[in-house]
Amino acid sequence: MKRNNSNQAILLIHCPDQKGLITIITQFVWQHKGNIVDLDEHVEREDEVFFMRVQWELDGFDIPKDQIASTFQQEIADKYEMTWQLHFTDKCPRMAIFASKSAHCLYDLLSRYYSGDWQVEIPLIISNHDTHREIAEKYNIPFFRFEVDANNKEEIEKKQIKLLLDHQVDFIVLARYMQILSQDFINTFPNKVINIHHSFLPAFPGAKPYHQAHQRGVKIIGATSHYVTTDLDAGPIIEQDIVKISHKDSVKELVRKGQDLEKIVLSRAIWSHLQRKTLVFGNKTVVFE
Amino acid sequence: MKRNNSNQAILLIHCPDQKGLITIITQFVWQHKGNIVDLDEHVEREDEVFFMRVQWELDGFDIPKDQIASTFQQEIADKYEMTWQLHFTDKCPRMAIFASKSAHCLYDLLSRYYSGDWQVEIPLIISNHDTHREIAEKYNIPFFRFEVDANNKEEIEKKQIKLLLDHQVDFIVLARYMQILSQDFINTFPNKVINIHHSFLPAFPGAKPYHQAHQRGVKIIGATSHYVTTDLDAGPIIEQDIVKISHKDSVKELVRKGQDLEKIVLSRAIWSHLQRKTLVFGNKTVVFE
Amino acid sequence: MKRNNSNQAILLIHCPDQKGLITIITQFVWQHKGNIVDLDEHVEREDEVFFMRVQWELDGFDIPKDQIASTFQQEIADKYEMTWQLHFTDKCPRMAIFASKSAHCLYDLLSRYYSGDWQVEIPLIISNHDTHREIAEKYNIPFFRFEVDANNKEEIEKKQIKLLLDHQVDFIVLARYMQILSQDFINTFPNKVINIHHSFLPAFPGAKPYHQAHQRGVKIIGATSHYVTTDLDAGPIIEQDIVKISHKDSVKELVRKGQDLEKIVLSRAIWSHLQRKTLVFGNKTVVFE
Amino acid sequence: MKRNNSNQAILLIHCPDQKGLITIITQFVWQHKGNIVDLDEHVEREDEVFFMRVQWELDGFDIPKDQIASTFQQEIADKYEMTWQLHFTDKCPRMAIFASKSAHCLYDLLSRYYSGDWQVEIPLIISNHDTHREIAEKYNIPFFRFEVDANNKEEIEKKQIKLLLDHQVDFIVLARYMQILSQDFINTFPNKVINIHHSFLPAFPGAKPYHQAHQRGVKIIGATSHYVTTDLDAGPIIEQDIVKISHKDSVKELVRKGQDLEKIVLSRAIWSHLQRKTLVFGNKTVVFE
Repeated sequence: MKRNNSNQAILLIHCPDQKGLITIITQFVWQHKGNIVDLDEHVEREDEVFFMRVQWELDGFDIPKDQIASTFQQEIADKYEMTWQLHFTDKCPRMAIFASKSAHCLYDLLSRYYSGDWQVEIPLIISNHDTHREIAEKYNIPFFRFEVDANNKEEIEKKQIKLLLDHQVDFIVLARYMQILSQDFINTFPNKVINIHHSFLPAFPGAKPYHQAHQRGVKIIGATSHYVTTDLDAGPIIEQDIVKISHKDSVKELVRKGQDLEKIVLSRAIWSHLQRKTLVFGNKTVVFE
Repeated sequence: MKRNNSNQAILLIHCPDQKGLITIITQFVWQHKGNIVDLDEHVEREDEVFFMRVQWELDGFDIPKDQIASTFQQEIADKYEMTWQLHFTDKCPRMAIFASKSAHCLYDLLSRYYSGDWQVEIPLIISNHDTHREIAEKYNIPFFRFEVDANNKEEIEKKQIKLLLDHQVDFIVLARYMQILSQDFINTFPNKVINIHHSFLPAFPGAKPYHQAHQRGVKIIGATSHYVTTDLDAGPIIEQDIVKISHKDSVKELVRKGQDLEKIVLSRAIWSHLQRKTLVFGNKTVVFE
Repeated sequence: MKRNNSNQAILLIHCPDQKGLITIITQFVWQHKGNIVDLDEHVEREDEVFFMRVQWELDGFDIPKDQIASTFQQEIADKYEMTWQLHFTDKCPRMAIFASKSAHCLYDLLSRYYSGDWQVEIPLIISNHDTHREIAEKYNIPFFRFEVDANNKEEIEKKQIKLLLDHQVDFIVLARYMQILSQDFINTFPNKVINIHHSFLPAFPGAKPYHQAHQRGVKIIGATSHYVTTDLDAGPIIEQDIVKISHKDSVKELVRKGQDLEKIVLSRAIWSHLQRKTLVFGNKTVVFE
Repeated sequence: MKRNNSNQAILLIHCPDQKGLITIITQFVWQHKGNIVDLDEHVEREDEVFFMRVQWELDGFDIPKDQIASTFQQEIADKYEMTWQLHFTDKCPRMAIFASKSAHCLYDLLSRYYSGDWQVEIPLIISNHDTHREIAEKYNIPFFRFEVDANNKEEIEKKQIKLLLDHQVDFIVLARYMQILSQDFINTFPNKVINIHHSFLPAFPGAKPYHQAHQRGVKIIGATSHYVTTDLDAGPIIEQDIVKISHKDSVKELVRKGQDLEKIVLSRAIWSHLQRKTLVFGNKTVVFE
């Protein structure tokens, strides 16, 4: 069976749990002649919430693409109080990158983009420094610098938001961006800003986590990628990983070892987001595999 | 919603893939008033095989327990050429242990059993040495010693098989048992003998894997738990894990570090088997999470 | 060359860093005809502190065993302001275990002891419950129960300290012991009480760390073994490890997965302590490999 | 104390083990007024071979830089039959890269180079395809393409060797280079060619390891970086790491997950090589930390 990966639909759903939901949703796809290529579900027992991700081929599906949303809403979603998103795999997501001076995460994202490993557009890079203007130009990506200080922050953010909307970005990656975004900014892009924090959250939030880790004498350091909320370093976690260290490692060594961790953890989180495998509920994520 | 964990049914299914299978199977449970508490499925694209595990509460289910199998066969399985197993969570599995002289895996299993962490019966321990008779007696488990040599192997195995059948064992764990089982033995218990091999298979099969690993100068050692087939150390893998080593580690150190790995990997494999989360297909396993 | 592992000396040293220390210390052993079998050193650049562990064979060493300490003090330690400990490998350490109701860590320690994997004596087990009396008796280890409450805590601890001193214990392991020890108790056994905390410290200190982890939605859980100080869950860390989890894992699953982590992390920490490979400096450890 | 990292010497030594070697070597540095900043040693008990790495500051060292080698040879090395290398930290190593069509390892190396994370020169990139000419040019690195086939291989390699010697390369990295190098080539650069193999060697050597891994149904995949010898995929291992997989992962997913592993493992191996922390002995490595 030949698969047409570029013409598939993805539904991400959550709703109050009840009997029969899987049957009902899969039947919707089946009866309309869709072929399910991936399905995952989860029930959070504590809150009795049902989560589901279903992906199917649109070839032969008997609802026109632009009517799937409204049909699903009427036939199913209304009745079961579903919150849902519909995505199509032929749409290439547009990802904005925010960076400061650190290179490793930014370079890693650019490599994945430029080599074609990821199907993603990068319409612009925004930075508070000029450090990465040259590399952005090498990759032909528009680069915007905003010198942010305490006084102009509100005004700058307004410009940034306009720029992001003008470039029709789907989501934003903070690739070790060293400025704290305002509530207004975050609320403009809910569950659409992905950050990488260089510690194993909730340990060592805030500034200089490697210094904190060295000070505490931990034997493992970590990195955490999460959706940004207005609560600093406390948003829904998408991905974490760790590396073992020892008493021999200075702060400088922690930084060096941590950088590889940060770029891998960030890219795994973005990959899950790109595949539409993440669902935010409350302050937690469901990340389907 | 109060769950009755001790009165649930589990269906493990595989069959040729086709549209609608998830709907059809979940509908079977739903229409008979069962409440699904866990569902996982997988489609092996290469061979177009569909795998599914579904677990539901029997309270309120309108098919009597002893007729579920035949009803499922008639209503569903026949039509879709399904291979399937039905298990009930109120049945406590009976696990036989084979051991030689090594203590770590055996002791770990006994600890899990005796502390009540695992719902499992251990009707007997079989060994080719007397080393563990005392610990078996401490835990009140019948212990049988068979001195095996090249001449009496066939005869001994016949006695062992009889003993295992008499004790109605559901599956067998080789807890670092240092004898190779015959084809007859293995065929008597297909996909029911779980072994732990002290290497990262397929690297270093056969004897003395830690010596082989030291000789080769690897930087990581592993352990592999698998169902035993007549092809030595080549059966379907259930679980693997590794630990990092360095040039400093002598063979003795590899053995020491490896022991903790072996017991954890073996126990994870047994846990998956006990939860009925493993499905063997060809020489591979599907291990649902 | 045949090694006599059972007749070796171990020196653990720290002092202000200066040129030539390695030469001076190794020369002491060499000139007195000792054969160094293991040496590791570390310089903490920030504080300019030198750490060293050196182990040598006593066969042929020309200083009598009971005069090594005083000779080293006079020839070397005085001059370089060294803090040091001298240990002999023919002395079997005496380890007391404190436990509450959890079985997994206690059973794991008993298995290592009883199977002969560890050269250690266990002169007694102390508990605030009777849960493990039976297993202690199976292994012929004296078991003492003290019912602790807010009113009798001081008095009970005095009895426990007396018991520990009477049994000449070298160190104490808290194998998921659910009582907080007083400052007096801890100061009586400085850097001699090893705890296992069921989280990746400094994340989730205090009670119910798995509930905290589930609540926060982390993607990894951990365990931490540390020397106990009067600052709760904040003593020098000896060993940490982690296991990946997902949104599928309930608190109950975290507890189950965490137990294997806890017992392995605790036993690795004890192993390092038994090998005299740990040095505490400030609130951190040097753990030689 | 201020360190001068850019003016230090590194000695890598191995010789037959005997008493007093550490004293003798450290005394050499100390008496000539060098300050040791890092020292590590290892004794391979089986073969009775002593390994040591010592790094010291040259400021104040009383042997002129160009006479250290000859002085060490005369004063120490001759007497103890030492094999040794002397390196200076102010020398920036020159690394040639061989690549084929895969981008991930090459891009990762270029990122580390261009961002200044690594102190390394990349005098040239050699490839059998034109795929990466553009990226090489972006980074201003000379790019040479050689179309290799069965007939011209010997001739091409001669040209490549000349090119490498002309560019005074110190070592060569095969960044997923898909051609097998001849014995002549390898012997020209002994222990100076670093490869990344996309499996957990010795499992799955040769072609298509991810296909082999998928076929075998392993639950973990790995990557191995090693010095290239004339025995294919069997050279001394420098670094290995793994990532867990499941039955859900197609070969395509293994390739995707493996790529991140490959680039990290390769870069760790190169880092150790750049820090002069690797010593080859027989078919194994000592990799100091």
